Amino acid sequence: MAERSGTLHLVPTWLGDAGGMEQLPAGNLDAIRRIDLWFCENERSARRALRRMDSDLDLTRLELHRFDKDSTRADALALLRGVVDGRDAAIISEAGMPGIADPGALLVAAAHESGIPVVPLIGPVSLMLTLAASGLNGQGFTFHGYLPVKSEERKRAIKRIESDAMRSGTAQLIIETPYRNDVLLNDLCMACAPSTLLCIGIDLTQPGGWARTMSMRQWKSERPPLGKRPAVFIIGSPQR
Amino acid sequence: MAERSGTLHLVPTWLGDAGGMEQLPAGNLDAIRRIDLWFCENERSARRALRRMDSDLDLTRLELHRFDKDSTRADALALLRGVVDGRDAAIISEAGMPGIADPGALLVAAAHESGIPVVPLIGPVSLMLTLAASGLNGQGFTFHGYLPVKSEERKRAIKRIESDAMRSGTAQLIIETPYRNDVLLNDLCMACAPSTLLCIGIDLTQPGGWARTMSMRQWKSERPPLGKRPAVFIIGSPQR
Repeated sequence: MAERSGTLHLVPTWLGDAGGMEQLPAGNLDAIRRIDLWFCENERSARRALRRMDSDLDLTRLELHRFDKDSTRADALALLRGVVDGRDAAIISEAGMPGIADPGALLVAAAHESGIPVVPLIGPVSLMLTLAASGLNGQGFTFHGYLPVKSEERKRAIKRIESDAMRSGTAQLIIETPYRNDVLLNDLCMACAPSTLLCIGIDLTQPGGWARTMSMRQWKSERPPLGKRPAVFIIGSPQR
Repeated sequence: MAERSGTLHLVPTWLGDAGGMEQLPAGNLDAIRRIDLWFCENERSARRALRRMDSDLDLTRLELHRFDKDSTRADALALLRGVVDGRDAAIISEAGMPGIADPGALLVAAAHESGIPVVPLIGPVSLMLTLAASGLNGQGFTFHGYLPVKSEERKRAIKRIESDAMRSGTAQLIIETPYRNDVLLNDLCMACAPSTLLCIGIDLTQPGGWARTMSMRQWKSERPPLGKRPAVFIIGSPQR
């Protein structure tokens, strides 16, 4: 590791439009105020988030570079050249923690390849907020990301995930694009056994957000409309 | 759900002895100052953490109840009776988030059974800080908790986990009691292929904490002493 290398900070952001710095550790501002080289998925929303963190921040002096799902390892290594040469930098996510269900991981991997120290800052992670709030198994769990979009394939994936949960007793986390939340709940109710547990966490940390764990039987009978809000779904075994 | 039911808050704490409220969202203090019914693994360290969050807190008015790994579902339902009757309560963890790699999950499950709303507060989760800092796959991962203690069994578990990581490309998270960190690193170096990636996150958020991702070949040749500090180990595939 070159002694003069800068450090790559990972800067988490809010899980929605409501809330201010009372939801994030004030200590994160030290890095936010000091760093002028930023990597983000979208420059406009990154600027908005930085301004939301510190309304006095001079955005004109910041250098923002886009790194998104289409970016490559070569892009990452090129972007990090300044950091190797001693400049501190940061990745800011669109929501939650960079690198968790977000393209930032490839940039972090390139930082390790380049011998750049990586410092993650504390902030919200919707997967863990929902898992904690679920009461499901926090000693063993798997995050699957998005399921297949086609209904038949998706139901097969759900059945496979449910059988893993039953066999191992572990919690199985899934996310979905918000406009398909109600369709996913429908498929879960159709594919899973009535006694299987499901936690849905909707818009946690945001006004009107909630998390609830019930059996599929109960979800099927209550079938609350989830709406188009960010959600995490967790399948769990009733046997612990 | 009874209309008069109280709410169960999940209150995360620091990952070590250093740091103050600059590491936690200031908004968490609203619940901390208001709530007087607390569930914890250890009364003494819970009081210490609450005092660390707010030095003005009057600890004498707090009612603390122990809920630990030996507590049962019946204990949980009994403890929650006051909450069902309208009193707000909170679970505070020994480190990080209640319910994640921590016995609080059973109490949260009982809250859902009792129709009590659960509200998780934002704070550090060592598993996610390490995963974000690893650059390994944040779109698909599994947390295994602790591995078997016996060396042969443990190496078999490691090989199984490594082959899952290679087959699926997902990240595989493991924790270990700090005094066995160096033994675990040794077993990982012996059991895994030289090209397999390993991230070790040591004491993240704490002074001298670090996270580093390298191939097993590099870990084997550098073999840094990890010491008896809290650590998260993540096995990943070099192919993404």
